[in-house]
Amino acid sequence: MAGILILGAGAMGAALTVPAAENNNEVGLWFTEYDLGIYEALRRGEPHPRIRVRLPSSVRLYRPEEFDEAVEAADLLILAVSSQGVYPVSRMLSRAMSGRDVPVAVVSKGIELVEGEPMTMAEVVAKYSGTRRVVYVSGPSLAAELAARRPTFTVYSSEDRVYAEGFREVMETSYYRISVSDDVLGASLSAALKNPYAIAYGIIDGMEGGGYNNLKAALVAHILGEMAGIVERLGGRRETVYGLSGIGDVYVTMMGGRNSMFGRLIGSGLTVGEALREMERRGVGVVEGYRNSETLIRYLEARGLGRGDAPILYTVYEILHKGAPKEVLIKTLTSLKS
Amino acid sequence: MAGILILGAGAMGAALTVPAAENNNEVGLWFTEYDLGIYEALRRGEPHPRIRVRLPSSVRLYRPEEFDEAVEAADLLILAVSSQGVYPVSRMLSRAMSGRDVPVAVVSKGIELVEGEPMTMAEVVAKYSGTRRVVYVSGPSLAAELAARRPTFTVYSSEDRVYAEGFREVMETSYYRISVSDDVLGASLSAALKNPYAIAYGIIDGMEGGGYNNLKAALVAHILGEMAGIVERLGGRRETVYGLSGIGDVYVTMMGGRNSMFGRLIGSGLTVGEALREMERRGVGVVEGYRNSETLIRYLEARGLGRGDAPILYTVYEILHKGAPKEVLIKTLTSLKS
Repeated sequence: MAGILILGAGAMGAALTVPAAENNNEVGLWFTEYDLGIYEALRRGEPHPRIRVRLPSSVRLYRPEEFDEAVEAADLLILAVSSQGVYPVSRMLSRAMSGRDVPVAVVSKGIELVEGEPMTMAEVVAKYSGTRRVVYVSGPSLAAELAARRPTFTVYSSEDRVYAEGFREVMETSYYRISVSDDVLGASLSAALKNPYAIAYGIIDGMEGGGYNNLKAALVAHILGEMAGIVERLGGRRETVYGLSGIGDVYVTMMGGRNSMFGRLIGSGLTVGEALREMERRGVGVVEGYRNSETLIRYLEARGLGRGDAPILYTVYEILHKGAPKEVLIKTLTSLKS
Repeated sequence: MAGILILGAGAMGAALTVPAAENNNEVGLWFTEYDLGIYEALRRGEPHPRIRVRLPSSVRLYRPEEFDEAVEAADLLILAVSSQGVYPVSRMLSRAMSGRDVPVAVVSKGIELVEGEPMTMAEVVAKYSGTRRVVYVSGPSLAAELAARRPTFTVYSSEDRVYAEGFREVMETSYYRISVSDDVLGASLSAALKNPYAIAYGIIDGMEGGGYNNLKAALVAHILGEMAGIVERLGGRRETVYGLSGIGDVYVTMMGGRNSMFGRLIGSGLTVGEALREMERRGVGVVEGYRNSETLIRYLEARGLGRGDAPILYTVYEILHKGAPKEVLIKTLTSLKS
C-alpha cells in the first residue's frame, strides 16, 4: 500500500484510479485547469463523463492549485496529462518534489518538441521533472474498459526494472495485469509510432469501401517490421514491438480510435484539410498521428535515420503534410522488399 | 514463361490462374471430382461461382480424368486442393510424374493425419509426391481479392530457396508480390495455427457484445508470442511469425473468415455443437480450426511439446473438444506471465 497520485483526470487518469484504489492505496487525482468541468461533475457525485463510471469513493480529488500539497503526500506519481502537458507538469514536479526523488510513471504517448528538441515522453520526464526514477506505461488500454474492470494487460518499463516493479506491486489487480520491461525506448517509440501507422491502416481501409483486405493484412506485417527496425536501430528491442507495447497497442489503435478514423476519411476521398474538419465536426478530439508523423520524423532524423528506415511512416507524413496523393501508399507498399 | 498446372479449382486455385496467366505462361487448371459443378459453369462461360470473376481465356481446363495428361505438360505444379486432398493427390502425382522431379508449390493449409501421423502439408507432399522440390505458399490472401488483381503479398518458402525463386520468376506480377523464404516449417505451422487462434479471438470478440477490446488486443500479442515459441522450438524462425506468413495471415483470419465467426458464436453463448450446426446452416463451409486444434496438438506432442508451450492453443482445444467452458480462455490469459 502506498500513496499514489495520478496527475491528469482525463479518461486514462481517471480509469487508473480504479485499480489503484483496489489495493488499499491512498489514491489522489489531480485536475489540470482543462479538467475542471470533470472536477465539478465528480464533486456532484456524477460518473466521470468520459469513461461513464463513478470513481472509487476513497479517491481524493485535488484542484489545479492544490498541486504542491498533492505531490507532497505521494510516494508514487502517475503522469496522465495530454502529451503537450508532460513538459509543463514535469517542470512543476521538479519544483514541487524539491529534491525528493519520487518515482514517476508516465502514461502519455507521442513525441513532443520541447525547447525545439523532439523527445519521447519518458525523455521529457527524465530531463525536466528532476526524478531519475522514470517508468513508462504502454500496452493496449481503452480507459473505459479498464474502469469497468475488464481484463487489461499493460507493460511498465524502466531502465532499472526495480522502479517498474515498485509500481506493479501496488497497482496490479486480477483484471489489471502488469508486466515489467527495461526497454523504455522501445515502448515509448511503439506508443508514438502506432498513431501514424493507424492512419496508414485507415487510409487503405477507407479505399473503395474496404475491399483491400489482403493489402491491409500485408500492411500490418510491414508496419510491424518497420517499427521493429526503427526501435532496434535506436537501441531498443525488436521483441518489444512484437509484444503488448507494439502489436497489442497497434492492433487496438487500428481497430478503433481516432487515427484510423481519420485515415479512413482520407482513404474514402477527402482531402487532409476536409478530413481534419470532419474530425472536428464529429467532436472526437485530437488526431495524435497527424502531428506525430512530423515529430517522429524529426526524432528519427535527429538520430541519423531517414526515409529508407521508415518508408511507410514517411509516406504517411508526405500524404498528411506534403500534399502527396493517398495512392502513393499503395505504391510504397508494393515496392517494398519483404 | 513456363507451363504451370494448378491442381484444384476452388477459390484459391482459380484465383491463382490470374497472376499465373499474366506472364505469358501456359496455365492449366485441373478439377477434382468435387469441382465438377465449377467446371461446367466455366465451360458455359460463366464467372467462377466462388470468386465471381471470369478466368483468363487462355487457361486450359482439365477434367478429373485428364490428370496424367495435365501433369505431363507442366513444368511447375501448384497444389491448391483441400487439405484432406493433399495426400491422395500427392500419391497421384507420384505415379504421374514417374521419376520427373517437378517442383510442387502447395497452397493448402493445416495439419492432417496421414496414415496415423500428424503432418504439415509440405511434409505430406515431400513424403508422398516423389518430388524433392517442395515449395510452401503462405501469407494473407483472400482469393476473390487476388482474382480481382488487388495487391496481395505472399511468401514462397523452400528449404533450398532456388525452388521458391523459380516460382517467383514466373508468378510475380505488379499486384501479386512474392517474397522468398527458406523457413518452410515456420510458414506451415503459422498457416495451421492461425485457425484455432482465430477461434480464440472470436470467442473473446463474441463475449458480451464485444466489449473486451483490451483483452482482444492482448490476446493478439499473446498469440503471436505463443506461435513464435512453438515455431522456434520445432526448428523454424520467430521472424516468420512476425511477418506476412504469421501476423499478416493471423490478422486477416481474425478479422474475417469462418474460424473467428465460429468462435464468436461460442463466445456469445452457443455450445460447440450448436455453433457447428449454425455454421452448417449458414453454409459457410468447414471450420478448419475446429479439427486443426486437435491435429496440431497431436503434431506438437509427437515432437515433445505440451501444454506449457501452447496454453492458448490447448485452451481452445479443451473448449472445442473437451467441454471446457468458454470462460477458461479469460482465465488462461490472465494467468499468463507477460
